Amino acid sequence: MDKMSRVPINELQLVESLQWRYAVKRFDSARRIDATTWAAIERSLVLTPSSFGLQPWKFVVVSSAENKAKLPAISWNQTQPADCSHMVVFAARKSVDEEYVDTYLEKVAYERNVSVLSLAGYRKVMVGFLQNTQGRHLVWSSNQVYLALGQLLASVAMLGVDACPMEGIVASEYDKLLGLDGSDYTTVVGCAIGYRHADDHYAKLAKVRFDATDLVSPL
Amino acid sequence: MDKMSRVPINELQLVESLQWRYAVKRFDSARRIDATTWAAIERSLVLTPSSFGLQPWKFVVVSSAENKAKLPAISWNQTQPADCSHMVVFAARKSVDEEYVDTYLEKVAYERNVSVLSLAGYRKVMVGFLQNTQGRHLVWSSNQVYLALGQLLASVAMLGVDACPMEGIVASEYDKLLGLDGSDYTTVVGCAIGYRHADDHYAKLAKVRFDATDLVSPL
Repeated sequence: MDKMSRVPINELQLVESLQWRYAVKRFDSARRIDATTWAAIERSLVLTPSSFGLQPWKFVVVSSAENKAKLPAISWNQTQPADCSHMVVFAARKSVDEEYVDTYLEKVAYERNVSVLSLAGYRKVMVGFLQNTQGRHLVWSSNQVYLALGQLLASVAMLGVDACPMEGIVASEYDKLLGLDGSDYTTVVGCAIGYRHADDHYAKLAKVRFDATDLVSPL
Repeated sequence: MDKMSRVPINELQLVESLQWRYAVKRFDSARRIDATTWAAIERSLVLTPSSFGLQPWKFVVVSSAENKAKLPAISWNQTQPADCSHMVVFAARKSVDEEYVDTYLEKVAYERNVSVLSLAGYRKVMVGFLQNTQGRHLVWSSNQVYLALGQLLASVAMLGVDACPMEGIVASEYDKLLGLDGSDYTTVVGCAIGYRHADDHYAKLAKVRFDATDLVSPL
């Protein structure tokens, strides 16, 4: 797709979509996200921007009924991970080394049809950053993961798909279940995606935000 | 606006918008975001979801030419904060106390027309969380800020407005300039918003993402 042309939506559509969304408490477990919609949601995850473009994350998508049923027990008994259509688990990279940077640069070189050598300056900046933040990579990668969560929440809202961002999950137990134990990645946060149950009364509660004048300051 | 009805966009519009966006290197300094568009962007910031709904953030928007001109010097000489239309600075709350929780609950009670007393269970959960994470509130609030950044990036892309997320800003200097020194908030990250310059060759570079099969795992 061309980066230079597409039809934007209008302001009202954006604001109405973000107003429409809410953190679903009860999903309609009978409704599944169809393949076309899911493909777009997955693509929006993959397209998330990240610091230096390094994408220090994995997205594990639990969608089988059998595996979803195991999740409430490791999610403080919340039922959204079982009743939703797709439970996205965001895992962040625990540390980023030069080997990872080089893997990324090979991808850049391939996609842009340039030599890896021509990216030496870019490499130096990234390696310098990673050396300066040694021991704090997971904080940095977790920030990136939350950015991905924010893009996902806005994206599904635009599509008319519901979601519930979930911090109340037991990361160590998710790591075990998802096979992340001993890997370079660890569970940070989750997001249940699907469709609200018609009886979820949370959908009818007024959205609560501080006043814009309290949150936004001009300078 | 009703939370129950609006017209969603289609999958192609979403993916094309996210494909269209990129981290702008050179903004067209002659183009300003108009008032209608800016109002929607500001509203999308205010509507960002957050952990418990606590909104532990402030968004400082630098849009005067005079103030924007001061930013490159405290942004590693990057020019986007000066040349963009609106520079959004995301500040996170350094710690969250019971007084803050009560201010929030008063807002909830007001918007939902319930008594503060009826929210005692909700209060207890939040206060328990904040006690258990004492000393780490800024990590938590920074995560929320990155979620806000992710929602903002997706939102402006949908509107056909360009952006550049900016981690390379000197937070302590921003705090001084924005009057955050000594406040409950500190600068975390920025986002320049406006319109790409016709000569920004970064717009023409292929977008680089790892393959979906490497980033997304089904379970």
